Amino acid sequence: MPIPQERKDDINKRLNYIQGQINGIRKMVDDERACVEILTQISSTYEAMRKISQTMMRNYMENCVTNSLRSDDQEEVNRMYDEVMKVVAKYSK
Amino acid sequence: MPIPQERKDDINKRLNYIQGQINGIRKMVDDERACVEILTQISSTYEAMRKISQTMMRNYMENCVTNSLRSDDQEEVNRMYDEVMKVVAKYSK
Amino acid sequence: MPIPQERKDDINKRLNYIQGQINGIRKMVDDERACVEILTQISSTYEAMRKISQTMMRNYMENCVTNSLRSDDQEEVNRMYDEVMKVVAKYSK
Amino acid sequence: MPIPQERKDDINKRLNYIQGQINGIRKMVDDERACVEILTQISSTYEAMRKISQTMMRNYMENCVTNSLRSDDQEEVNRMYDEVMKVVAKYSK
Repeated sequence: MPIPQERKDDINKRLNYIQGQINGIRKMVDDERACVEILTQISSTYEAMRKISQTMMRNYMENCVTNSLRSDDQEEVNRMYDEVMKVVAKYSK
Repeated sequence: MPIPQERKDDINKRLNYIQGQINGIRKMVDDERACVEILTQISSTYEAMRKISQTMMRNYMENCVTNSLRSDDQEEVNRMYDEVMKVVAKYSK
Repeated sequence: MPIPQERKDDINKRLNYIQGQINGIRKMVDDERACVEILTQISSTYEAMRKISQTMMRNYMENCVTNSLRSDDQEEVNRMYDEVMKVVAKYSK
Repeated sequence: MPIPQERKDDINKRLNYIQGQINGIRKMVDDERACVEILTQISSTYEAMRKISQTMMRNYMENCVTNSLRSDDQEEVNRMYDEVMKVVAKYSK
């Protein structure tokens, strides 16, 4: 499934950032830093992951979802509805 | 702020797991794997992070929160109330 | 925007249920019931609202989203991408 | 469990507001209004519920949690840790 190079670069940049945050958490835990600081760092990592999931969701919509919803095959359309609902449920509050 | 070795080990194990997932996402993006697979992998990483935040929250509660709420200094108690509300808000739906 | 009668009935049933829960919370607060019980009731209300939002999201996808993504007008398609991303962001963790 | 009158009033005001929003959703569904409008209204209702849960969490912390964590009975303290973790998990992303 195609992902524009621009998006790949954006995602990779964020993944590297998250990698750094993970290493940061590891060190903070080892140094027994204040819990609030560690909890704040973990929540920043969530935020960074959220940005990546938004980029992937857009890609998903622009490619897979659009292609299926344009199909003449109603079964393919319905399968895509089910798939999208599952994905959205995974990410919902 | 003290963190029992058992908890540090648990957290480190999970951090290593997440590190692996991050690398997995990087490869999947590079290989242009199906968006749904990438989105599923990202959401697994959220879950893993959630487990870590739960362990840290428990530690926070057993140490910092308990100590402050037992204080005779009402200002310290109130500050802890404010701090806990901020932390919980960061993690709430 | 069309909503099948079956879905309207489902949503109305859930809205009535939520109305009952809201009244329940009101009474529990007035009676100064245990905070955990009230917090549990509130979180059940979230769950009920979630079910409604899932039904509406499906309807949205089957009608508005599908129609726009099938359009020959690329601007309309792009507007729908932007709109869907906004909706999903509102509901995301 | 005591709830200051000021908090009861605040919660009741918000509950009335949510009641109005629920009625609004009912009407919008009946009138088959645009799905995005209905989804936006549902998400506003979440926000209103969130405010109520924050007020109740604070009350919970200032009363139940504080009392238990100040106990000399370590079992009561541990039970409160378990209870708080359950509550926080219910409300977590």
